[in-house]
Amino acid sequence: MYSFKTEQGKIFHQLAHWTIRLVPLSFVTGSLVALFLWLLDWATHTRWQHLWLLFLLPLAGMLIWALYHYFGRDAEAGNNLVMDEIHEPGGGVPARMTPLVLLGTIITHLFGGSAGREGTAVQMGGSIADIFAKWYRLKKEDRSVLLMCGMAAGFGAVFGTPVAGALFAMEVLFIGRIKYHALIPCLISAVLADIVCSSYGIIHTHYTIHTKIAQTVTTWIPGFSFDLLLLLKVIGAGIAFGLAGMAFARCTHLLKRGWTRLIPAKWLIPVAGGIVIIGGCYALGNFDYLGLGVVNPNGHNSIVSAFTTGGVDAWSWLWKLLFTAVTLSAGFKGGEVTPLFFIGAALGNTIAVLSGAPADLFAGLGFIAVFAAATNTPVACMVMGVELFGGENILYFAVACFTAYYFSGHSGIYKAQRIAVPKIHRK
Amino acid sequence: MYSFKTEQGKIFHQLAHWTIRLVPLSFVTGSLVALFLWLLDWATHTRWQHLWLLFLLPLAGMLIWALYHYFGRDAEAGNNLVMDEIHEPGGGVPARMTPLVLLGTIITHLFGGSAGREGTAVQMGGSIADIFAKWYRLKKEDRSVLLMCGMAAGFGAVFGTPVAGALFAMEVLFIGRIKYHALIPCLISAVLADIVCSSYGIIHTHYTIHTKIAQTVTTWIPGFSFDLLLLLKVIGAGIAFGLAGMAFARCTHLLKRGWTRLIPAKWLIPVAGGIVIIGGCYALGNFDYLGLGVVNPNGHNSIVSAFTTGGVDAWSWLWKLLFTAVTLSAGFKGGEVTPLFFIGAALGNTIAVLSGAPADLFAGLGFIAVFAAATNTPVACMVMGVELFGGENILYFAVACFTAYYFSGHSGIYKAQRIAVPKIHRK
Repeated sequence: MYSFKTEQGKIFHQLAHWTIRLVPLSFVTGSLVALFLWLLDWATHTRWQHLWLLFLLPLAGMLIWALYHYFGRDAEAGNNLVMDEIHEPGGGVPARMTPLVLLGTIITHLFGGSAGREGTAVQMGGSIADIFAKWYRLKKEDRSVLLMCGMAAGFGAVFGTPVAGALFAMEVLFIGRIKYHALIPCLISAVLADIVCSSYGIIHTHYTIHTKIAQTVTTWIPGFSFDLLLLLKVIGAGIAFGLAGMAFARCTHLLKRGWTRLIPAKWLIPVAGGIVIIGGCYALGNFDYLGLGVVNPNGHNSIVSAFTTGGVDAWSWLWKLLFTAVTLSAGFKGGEVTPLFFIGAALGNTIAVLSGAPADLFAGLGFIAVFAAATNTPVACMVMGVELFGGENILYFAVACFTAYYFSGHSGIYKAQRIAVPKIHRK
Repeated sequence: MYSFKTEQGKIFHQLAHWTIRLVPLSFVTGSLVALFLWLLDWATHTRWQHLWLLFLLPLAGMLIWALYHYFGRDAEAGNNLVMDEIHEPGGGVPARMTPLVLLGTIITHLFGGSAGREGTAVQMGGSIADIFAKWYRLKKEDRSVLLMCGMAAGFGAVFGTPVAGALFAMEVLFIGRIKYHALIPCLISAVLADIVCSSYGIIHTHYTIHTKIAQTVTTWIPGFSFDLLLLLKVIGAGIAFGLAGMAFARCTHLLKRGWTRLIPAKWLIPVAGGIVIIGGCYALGNFDYLGLGVVNPNGHNSIVSAFTTGGVDAWSWLWKLLFTAVTLSAGFKGGEVTPLFFIGAALGNTIAVLSGAPADLFAGLGFIAVFAAATNTPVACMVMGVELFGGENILYFAVACFTAYYFSGHSGIYKAQRIAVPKIHRK
């Protein structure tokens, strides 16, 4: 028999404790993410108005290299450093990571690098959390939880998906396992940070899947309305999304090693990366694969346009994959997730055209599933699908994300991720 | 570097293997669940038409006792036996569990016991899975996965919520942890079983939350639309749901011990339980708390009516809790989950009335959160909320389920559940 007073009392005490700890963390992280999103918007619009900024990308890369070289070498490891500190608390996440990654990301996007934004948000959240952990004088275990809360806050606020943010922070540390020791703290911080971020007037891009599956179904048994053919197409697409996620992770890792081998002077690597990006734009004859790619001034080849039939070219997903792998491997900042959304949505669109499936649904599936594959976080991505696109298609979200997760193998974009349960059981 | 051919080849091989294994299991489980739901519907309607059947409840209880006593004593442990076999494969789940629990549940519902249906579905799935495991000659580890698939198939089919079914089977075994080794097999079997069950024309009850939160919001910052007061009410309700889930679990366990202590002759326990139920009905002056409680012929005090303002009495949740605890502790069959839905929805309705919150939303939150608390499966219940009520309110689903999970402590309705990560970290 448990003592009611003791057990529930302890739980209440613990909850109150964490809430008090997390309010300032969430407030600061949410505010910083709002500032970041506002700056990012400014950088993106400025680049659209002044296309010549792209030619300064190699110089911008050198500037980012110099920033990290002179002011924060230990912050270079980014997301992996935050994750390593959660696994095994060590030297801590440096406070300077916040200004560095914020500045680095804005520079990357202003001059046309193809990168994301979640890395920035997660790193800001992580480094702010570590400042608070020192102030609170937390023990090792509680410090880990607080760092996870920082990640959850950053992720939840930057995409406006607090539940996915909380699950992401718990799911990303290990392949194949979620532990619930940080369940409530992560949810509190992600929800609060999202509220704070929204309160500054930040409005997240709205995506819509118009296709209603129930209406497109051909029923052959009375009263039975399930589209088995569509399910098979989703499974096939899920395999493709998994392989795309894996291809992105491997491509980035390979290119990173390639640069280091080919170019001995480290400061020259971002310069070379910038030149490759410029060359790529002229080879393709457009600027569609620069920046975040959420929207595009010409209305074509963007995440939003991928939700409409004919909204992206057949190979858009591959170009975005290559542009992003070059950008990030060369040392530019921002993270991988928004480009992964682009790659997935574009690939989904292409698969929909090829297989005669609804383009908006498959764009949405790719959006979350390639991300699930590259980061090994299928449950968080399924929930993100619900938060972004609504819940009617949760079955397809689950099938696509779980299948993609399964087929991406054990390579992911985060080297600090550990394997708890391998995906292959039989030899 | 991973070898693409080997790793992805193995994954594909493993997937194909499991799919072939799971098709017959899902087909049989889905078909049995359809038969069960059809019989259950028949039993419920028959009881409504012939209210005198209630007076035979004590005799019916004796019949169920005799069935288990003479034909399947080892099947008595029910859900806990299936879970124990997954934890540590031993004597196996007996095949006779399927006809016994099916018959026991139909008898319980025909004569007016207050019970659920998920226990029956999960036990049928588990015992069918064990038959297949023996046919396939599976090793220990694969047999565990197949049993989990049986649970997922039963749960997914009986409620028409395949994604929640798959997550439930993975989440229920341990408090505080999900391991992904059965992710894909559980999803395959839950989805297939649900398709099979639906193909017989089974239509699940449809619940709707009409309240659109965005419309009820009072904004005090331009562009900011978040109802902070509502969030606080949801947290408060989540705590109440958690305590209700805990109260149900403890009440059932306590009553079970109470019966054994008071009544030495085991066959007399269900007789006494039946008499208490009949007495309860006459004390309250209604038959609202018998059976599943999904709908009620008088349109009042049911799960469906709890979604409307004034649809349930203020103490409905407590009566259903007591009726169910008496029914199940006395040896009647069926499971706890649908009564937990009732308790939660009714309590949510009461809290909504008291706090001035939308009744349909709070009924929906209670529906999933009391279940999350009593079974310690917050993520599966959140997903179930999305599958049943749609995705717009996923944030409130998460807050309610996670809070309720947290506050229910470590007692749950399943004794075979193990603790992986305790909910209290500080002493």
